[in-house]
Amino acid sequence: MKSVLNSLKRLVPLEIPGVGAFEPYSAPFSAITGLQGKTRAALPLKAAAPCRDKVASSLRRAIEQSGLTDGMTISFHHHLRNGDAVIPMVLKELEEMGFKNLTFAPSSIPDAHDCVADYIKSGLIGKLYTSGVRGKLGKLLSSGETNIPVVIRSHGGRARAIEEGSIKIDVAFLAAPACDCLGNISGCYGPSACGSLGYSIIDARNAAHVIAVTDNLVEYPLSPKISIPQYLVDQVVVVDSIGDPSKIATGAARITRNPVDLRIAEDSFKLMKASGIVEPGFSFQMGVGGASLAVAVYLEEYMTEKGITGSFGLGGVGGYMASMHDKGLFRTVFDVQSFDAVVTKSMAANPSHIEIDASWYANPFNAGALVNNLDCVILAALEVDTEFNVNVLTGNDGVLRGASGGHQDTAAGAKLSIVVCPSFRGGVPSIKEKVTTITTPGETVDAIVTERGICINSRRPELLEAASKAGLHVSDISSLKKEVEKLTGVPETIEFDYERPLAAVEYRDGTLIDAVYAAK
Amino acid sequence: MKSVLNSLKRLVPLEIPGVGAFEPYSAPFSAITGLQGKTRAALPLKAAAPCRDKVASSLRRAIEQSGLTDGMTISFHHHLRNGDAVIPMVLKELEEMGFKNLTFAPSSIPDAHDCVADYIKSGLIGKLYTSGVRGKLGKLLSSGETNIPVVIRSHGGRARAIEEGSIKIDVAFLAAPACDCLGNISGCYGPSACGSLGYSIIDARNAAHVIAVTDNLVEYPLSPKISIPQYLVDQVVVVDSIGDPSKIATGAARITRNPVDLRIAEDSFKLMKASGIVEPGFSFQMGVGGASLAVAVYLEEYMTEKGITGSFGLGGVGGYMASMHDKGLFRTVFDVQSFDAVVTKSMAANPSHIEIDASWYANPFNAGALVNNLDCVILAALEVDTEFNVNVLTGNDGVLRGASGGHQDTAAGAKLSIVVCPSFRGGVPSIKEKVTTITTPGETVDAIVTERGICINSRRPELLEAASKAGLHVSDISSLKKEVEKLTGVPETIEFDYERPLAAVEYRDGTLIDAVYAAK
Repeated sequence: MKSVLNSLKRLVPLEIPGVGAFEPYSAPFSAITGLQGKTRAALPLKAAAPCRDKVASSLRRAIEQSGLTDGMTISFHHHLRNGDAVIPMVLKELEEMGFKNLTFAPSSIPDAHDCVADYIKSGLIGKLYTSGVRGKLGKLLSSGETNIPVVIRSHGGRARAIEEGSIKIDVAFLAAPACDCLGNISGCYGPSACGSLGYSIIDARNAAHVIAVTDNLVEYPLSPKISIPQYLVDQVVVVDSIGDPSKIATGAARITRNPVDLRIAEDSFKLMKASGIVEPGFSFQMGVGGASLAVAVYLEEYMTEKGITGSFGLGGVGGYMASMHDKGLFRTVFDVQSFDAVVTKSMAANPSHIEIDASWYANPFNAGALVNNLDCVILAALEVDTEFNVNVLTGNDGVLRGASGGHQDTAAGAKLSIVVCPSFRGGVPSIKEKVTTITTPGETVDAIVTERGICINSRRPELLEAASKAGLHVSDISSLKKEVEKLTGVPETIEFDYERPLAAVEYRDGTLIDAVYAAK
Repeated sequence: MKSVLNSLKRLVPLEIPGVGAFEPYSAPFSAITGLQGKTRAALPLKAAAPCRDKVASSLRRAIEQSGLTDGMTISFHHHLRNGDAVIPMVLKELEEMGFKNLTFAPSSIPDAHDCVADYIKSGLIGKLYTSGVRGKLGKLLSSGETNIPVVIRSHGGRARAIEEGSIKIDVAFLAAPACDCLGNISGCYGPSACGSLGYSIIDARNAAHVIAVTDNLVEYPLSPKISIPQYLVDQVVVVDSIGDPSKIATGAARITRNPVDLRIAEDSFKLMKASGIVEPGFSFQMGVGGASLAVAVYLEEYMTEKGITGSFGLGGVGGYMASMHDKGLFRTVFDVQSFDAVVTKSMAANPSHIEIDASWYANPFNAGALVNNLDCVILAALEVDTEFNVNVLTGNDGVLRGASGGHQDTAAGAKLSIVVCPSFRGGVPSIKEKVTTITTPGETVDAIVTERGICINSRRPELLEAASKAGLHVSDISSLKKEVEKLTGVPETIEFDYERPLAAVEYRDGTLIDAVYAAK
């Protein structure tokens, strides 16, 4: 397999057998100028006779009518998270029907879905396109026991890949918390309500065939919030349950009491303030736990005190963001994925809590996604390195245990991208000479905040100056790395077999930013 | 020019020079089975660097940056109706910039826009794709003085043509009643508010370049109702005024006092009732004036009395439908075009008054448009014939003075399509041996109601039986024709020059249902 070093000096393949050719990553926005004359995928034309009911008699019947054959591509969404019952249900049915060598292309894979590993072993799944890989599946893929092509994409990158045709979805199976007999779908209602269906809207718009799977068939027409309109949906399948509500919402997030996280959060907020971005019209995306969430507490206090109203909150939306919106601290929330039941309720009730699709959120190949308008994003990391590159995909043992998510999308788009990260975890330092896998290029990361100091990317001298002026505890990242290593020791480096890429890691524009290799 | 007779025995060209090849019309749903392996147009890929402002310094500058060149296709919407100032403004600018031979492809042309005729004469416009042609433009085209290719399409047919690539929009100019600096657009707010932007959503999704033209630049982000999201919009142009509010809304429609119209309306309603469709869950589309609107008065009384709640109203929505929705007579309104200011207000305020795009409304080439779910539609006509074919495009002098609109779309989709029509107008009978131009095939028209009786299509024997049982005054259409001709005399037939098609009339599936010829 021919490989080259990309601009970050990562060895990436130029081709993945069974998938196609890839370009190496070169710069965050280099693709902008290279699209002249290129086109999106040409979608299949379809037509339907007038009908009053698209409900198939069974999941099996729907699959039979879908035209699915071996080797085709199926897609799913992960909005039901660990409560999702549709991926296991459909894969089981497909296995029983004798399908082989399908490309499994969900928006991401919930942690709980160990079954995916089994279906790779059985030959049902022959290729995997996803944002994240964890648990048993991560171990299986990282072991090198299987040899299926795997491509990791960000949420914006997946939308791009679907629209441009790098992912051609033959059949999309859409878990539908509420659905009518003609396929109008909402995520806001029903026992398995999950809020936004932002990732799956792209699948519905671009799949050759769309099957809605619901446990909540409502009177026609579904109203008032329709996430996916009937004209995109070919069949409806009614099942007993599409999910376990207790596992769909993460539940109201508690603010961390961990002093390390609180220290990181406070310093992150101070950096935001020092940078001058927390002004009227401020826009923000944050995480839903740990230090990232805790930043919002400081932010809320400040915005309230100063009477600052932000323009929009974006995300992956958790309860804390919904609450800030409720309090009027952000005029609008744009929601591609809702984490808590309270967020789902907010989206159902509040017109300025707006459901967005993944292209609107983060696709780099359109006239301007929302990530491009972010003033600040707070991002977590498994590892960072002295070039500010970030790894959110693999552990320091090289095993797949994370997800690309919206990390590289928001880091590229936001004016100020802050990565929050304890300086070490379980005795292992978080700042490396080189991260195990690059998912987000250091060029797009402005600062890394640890409990031992704030590191500012040398590409942002004006930010360094502002932080210094504000008297913040700014550290040089190499010095901080050494300081931590005095406590933890220098971790051993794993040796990888660079002849054997296990997974290709795309940058959002479709170039390869890295590959995951088997440990020797 | 090679022409053939289609299944309705109309002579249609097989090719229009400069446009392409066409198939003759064969049957309302024959295209459903012929799409296997065919694809939609491949849209151009684009990307944008993060930016906080897409506002161009002037309309001219935006045009310069759009990549528009001679011979390309430009599109507009007609949601501002006779109040629209954007079509004249842009055409004037293009003329001054020296453009030639553009394909002008608006969703329709407001009656007031005589300027279009001038720009055809000047050579700015070299091809015309529209739903309707009236006034000075209709006279010009019908005179045969110009010789530009003209294709008439229904609202659903235009959505189909754009998605499949028969109309490739190079630059879409979108009149935007409310718009933010990054191109989020709504029709609900501002001095030129027009409600739904349903037709233009298709342009925004499919154009190579999109320019929003607004007189109401709002704080970013526009909220809460976003009709067209920023990621589809390349540039924003701010102008003093996009329209004349007094001409945008038709104003609250008055119920007709014309006894002919009232008689037609009452009989139409009786036929609806007799057919058994006015039941809970009933769905309905009606016109906004004359007999068509008056039907709703009878319908409302009946639904109220019987406690019937309908599922949805659809349309082209006027104030009367919005009011029935407000009163709870329809659970939902799906709105592709709003006629009155009161409708715009309803859409802005009422979550179950849902804005839909033209594909959702009526596109025959998708998984199922809303017209397919209509129980009943009431439609007007300029002429009908004894085969129940309808003409809504040309006068009996052969001159273009109408629009295809949603006529053929709703007639095809609805369970019961009723055409309302006075038996004669200005001494000229409405029932002809052959209509001047067929826009809607008789196969999709169930009944024609005049003040002299109800004619029922022989393809609907069960409807005839129901009407007879209910004691309705049912007439044979040929007999009724003769009865009217006794009063009016038999109108003279115009001779056409069949060597010279002036405009091709598409059926919604893209086949040619007829052509408009020059009178000899």
